[in-house]
Amino acid sequence: MDNFIYQIPTKVIFGKDTESLAGKEIKSLGASRVLLHYGGQSAKSSGLIDNVSASLKEAGLFHIELCGVLPNPRLSKVEEGVKLCRENSIDFILAVGGGSVIDSAKAISLGAAGDCPVWDFYERKQIPKKGIMHGAIPTIAAAGSETSNSAVITNEDGWIKKGLTTELNRPKFAIMNPKLTYSVPAYHTACGITDIMMHTMDRYFSHTKDTDFTDRVSEALLQSVIQAGKIVMKNPTDYAARADLMWAGSISHNGLTGLGKVTDFAPHQLEHELSGKYDVAHGAGLAAIWGHWARYVYKENIMKFAQFAQRVFNVSMNFENPEATALEGIERTENYFRSIGMPVNLKELGIDPSPEDYHDMAEKCTYFGKRTIGGFQVLEYKDIKAIYQAARANAQ
Amino acid sequence: MDNFIYQIPTKVIFGKDTESLAGKEIKSLGASRVLLHYGGQSAKSSGLIDNVSASLKEAGLFHIELCGVLPNPRLSKVEEGVKLCRENSIDFILAVGGGSVIDSAKAISLGAAGDCPVWDFYERKQIPKKGIMHGAIPTIAAAGSETSNSAVITNEDGWIKKGLTTELNRPKFAIMNPKLTYSVPAYHTACGITDIMMHTMDRYFSHTKDTDFTDRVSEALLQSVIQAGKIVMKNPTDYAARADLMWAGSISHNGLTGLGKVTDFAPHQLEHELSGKYDVAHGAGLAAIWGHWARYVYKENIMKFAQFAQRVFNVSMNFENPEATALEGIERTENYFRSIGMPVNLKELGIDPSPEDYHDMAEKCTYFGKRTIGGFQVLEYKDIKAIYQAARANAQ
Repeated sequence: MDNFIYQIPTKVIFGKDTESLAGKEIKSLGASRVLLHYGGQSAKSSGLIDNVSASLKEAGLFHIELCGVLPNPRLSKVEEGVKLCRENSIDFILAVGGGSVIDSAKAISLGAAGDCPVWDFYERKQIPKKGIMHGAIPTIAAAGSETSNSAVITNEDGWIKKGLTTELNRPKFAIMNPKLTYSVPAYHTACGITDIMMHTMDRYFSHTKDTDFTDRVSEALLQSVIQAGKIVMKNPTDYAARADLMWAGSISHNGLTGLGKVTDFAPHQLEHELSGKYDVAHGAGLAAIWGHWARYVYKENIMKFAQFAQRVFNVSMNFENPEATALEGIERTENYFRSIGMPVNLKELGIDPSPEDYHDMAEKCTYFGKRTIGGFQVLEYKDIKAIYQAARANAQ
Repeated sequence: MDNFIYQIPTKVIFGKDTESLAGKEIKSLGASRVLLHYGGQSAKSSGLIDNVSASLKEAGLFHIELCGVLPNPRLSKVEEGVKLCRENSIDFILAVGGGSVIDSAKAISLGAAGDCPVWDFYERKQIPKKGIMHGAIPTIAAAGSETSNSAVITNEDGWIKKGLTTELNRPKFAIMNPKLTYSVPAYHTACGITDIMMHTMDRYFSHTKDTDFTDRVSEALLQSVIQAGKIVMKNPTDYAARADLMWAGSISHNGLTGLGKVTDFAPHQLEHELSGKYDVAHGAGLAAIWGHWARYVYKENIMKFAQFAQRVFNVSMNFENPEATALEGIERTENYFRSIGMPVNLKELGIDPSPEDYHDMAEKCTYFGKRTIGGFQVLEYKDIKAIYQAARANAQ
């Protein structure tokens, strides 16, 4: 086990009707001028934005709205938010929506408090030193952005998708009402389930030894998410299952499931190029690529994949042939993805890249030769291209 | 699942040699005058106190020392610390030691910042409104006090032991070096293991429905602690096992394993009277009483005890007779306690209360008729007395 630092100062307020507490919480933090940031019409038409607005007004807070955040949140919207914050002396950004909205709010927070273009932070040209306080009311169980310290933004100029991790990205509070996720359509619910699983699996597959406790917590989380995922696909208004998914989504990406380990995150990096180029849903992209990554790398540590198969999917351990157990675990994972309506290859994802597209994605994924990805197996251009191609070929 | 609020602002700095970071951390919090609070000679003779002192000096911090904290920390020592803090304008208390030292530091923090006798907070006569900042360097994996919001103090006047829970009790940081626990004797290591298990088990046994994720995390923690406990009893310098115990000890008592549930904590309340009266080690007292509590209450929810048996101890579920599975789980737990050298009844604990003693303990445990204990089964005077007596009778 490696040394680690762990601190999650975000205050989680979890349960039914909790969104009505937003105004009071923001006021208690000393803020008074709020940017209410959200996505599209569903948040508005459901009455959620009205409820939150009422809570802000009740607490005596000024607020303006900025909506229209798209999936794979765009830099142009972030820049619009930065301008609004400056013009209106905003001192708190409240994100109401999915991971895209929360990530957009985080980027606005840094941009409005900084004195350089916000993309400079994402390109590592500048280091952010301060941010406007922000909080989150997630409406989907997925990215875990509501308690995480990272945010991913897409620059439309070249469709480059980049993540940024800084403690400044940590929301002051996360108000989580599982009922707000009842209306998430089945496909996006499944994308969220996949994303939650992958945040833990991208930390799980590691060569770091002696991480029993962290591993077991990860396995517990995966088992609970797999079970809750099955339930909500049948009954979208099952409170307990929606609650398990929502809370697991936060835990999955706030660091707990990766403590003391070298983490991997190659599947996430591979997927970023897919959704950056084709604008597919992030969770669907992850499901489509994961099995092909796994089959490419599992020989690096067959016993880790066997442990995953046995403890997460109750695959009986084949002691004469652990590799069979490992492969069975990969297959069970893909079967699970399929069972909740997720694609497990590029064809099912609905895309058919040309040879040049594979080249482009692999190039971009290495930042044009400036980085490798992955900790479980270090992947460079040729590996990345091979995994993309396997993801296609196996679809035929 | 019930609504909940969860926030653990304590910064965890975990791993080898981390105690040398103490001075720097305290300085970064803006403090300059430190009370270094510890127990006895072992911390001094091991060189730990010297190392920590050196770290404080290197950071340019003034410090004074207060040692001599005993297990089941005493009010008189707390009052001594309060006086010292006031006389020396202390603005940070650094606890180096076990849960007793950390709890003592928490009480000093409230006492020194308050304007009433510190015991008034414990008797609920006053509500604490502020505290001096404090941090912890635990030297035993046990109470989890280093990230928890509670502290237990014993008033020698009547040997009354009381706990107090307030967010002010949360340390600013917990510096956790598993190597510092290598020298903890086997008996106290086992007491710590028991305490860690019980912090989770006292949350686990609950009638709140639909807590799958919280339950699974609890089961993961218990499995990891049981395994690590076996390892350290054979090899006290196994870093990985000591690390798992240490981190699990914090997680076990910072709230995560009880979120969204009505918790029980009757075994803890029952034990407080034992260690309050007989000054036995808290963990040993818990091991001695738990099985008798469990057999007294398990019929309230046989399936919960069966789930515990199956998922934590891999007991094969008896579908025709779940009660047998439930009872097998209780027996396996006691067998585990015995295997690490813990007592499972009052005789093995080394005490033999008289009939009046049972009466006295049961009276005190109900705050002389002013409260009941337990959430799984509400226990009053007659139940409490019966459990104490069962703990003795079954020893004969």
